[in-house]
Amino acid sequence: MGAGNSPCASCKLLRRRCAKDCVFSPYFPSDNPHKFAIVHKVFGASNISKMLQELPVHQRGDAVSSLVYEANARMKDPVYGCVGAISYLQNQVSQLQMQLALAQAEILCIQMQSQDQPTALTSPLHELVADDKSFFFSDNLNYF
Amino acid sequence: MGAGNSPCASCKLLRRRCAKDCVFSPYFPSDNPHKFAIVHKVFGASNISKMLQELPVHQRGDAVSSLVYEANARMKDPVYGCVGAISYLQNQVSQLQMQLALAQAEILCIQMQSQDQPTALTSPLHELVADDKSFFFSDNLNYF
Repeated sequence: MGAGNSPCASCKLLRRRCAKDCVFSPYFPSDNPHKFAIVHKVFGASNISKMLQELPVHQRGDAVSSLVYEANARMKDPVYGCVGAISYLQNQVSQLQMQLALAQAEILCIQMQSQDQPTALTSPLHELVADDKSFFFSDNLNYF
Repeated sequence: MGAGNSPCASCKLLRRRCAKDCVFSPYFPSDNPHKFAIVHKVFGASNISKMLQELPVHQRGDAVSSLVYEANARMKDPVYGCVGAISYLQNQVSQLQMQLALAQAEILCIQMQSQDQPTALTSPLHELVADDKSFFFSDNLNYF
């Protein structure tokens, strides 16, 4: 049952009695009907109810948040939904890994050249990035 | 209607006649019942049918692929689904942007020091990363 004895947004939309132990009630308050409407349109009330009931109570809030996020993404991009964001981020990660490998190779090149110079070059930032040198020599070579 | 006059995987699961113009048939062949079962469990047949019918035919294949991906992610991670992957990738992007900014700052430091040296340092990789110098001076400063 929602706040003030009014049915929760889910029971209101589904035109049913909002029981005291309604599975939707804690996550879909009556003052935000859009939140339930969007997950209902994408997943269906029956599926959401089953998914929530299969989870322990302390994880249901996070599950509702992720379902709302996914449903919003599907409404904005009916073809790719959330998967469009994943694909975009995966491309961004690949590009950044390549840029980082190039920058680290640049540092190595300069350092190797500096060893042939009479005065060694040092920088305060050197130690901060030193731990990541293995990056360039490991599985990131496949980006070249 | 599926191949060889047998109903498609969707109509088989839903125990209904597979019409010639069945909206599921091109994407859910009878020899892969799991593919439909998983999207049916997460989104529901009725919602998938509506989503596909609202799209032009040439985009339906991609929509089905992304729905199958999302449904699989939700089965593997019932709390966060696809959103868990998005969160992980966003963190990875942030970390890589910080590492790249540090590496580029390291290059700048070494180059500034080298200007004080009698012999200038050059490297064959220098020009490859030169275009990305603006990265460090623009919106990526917010990572510090």
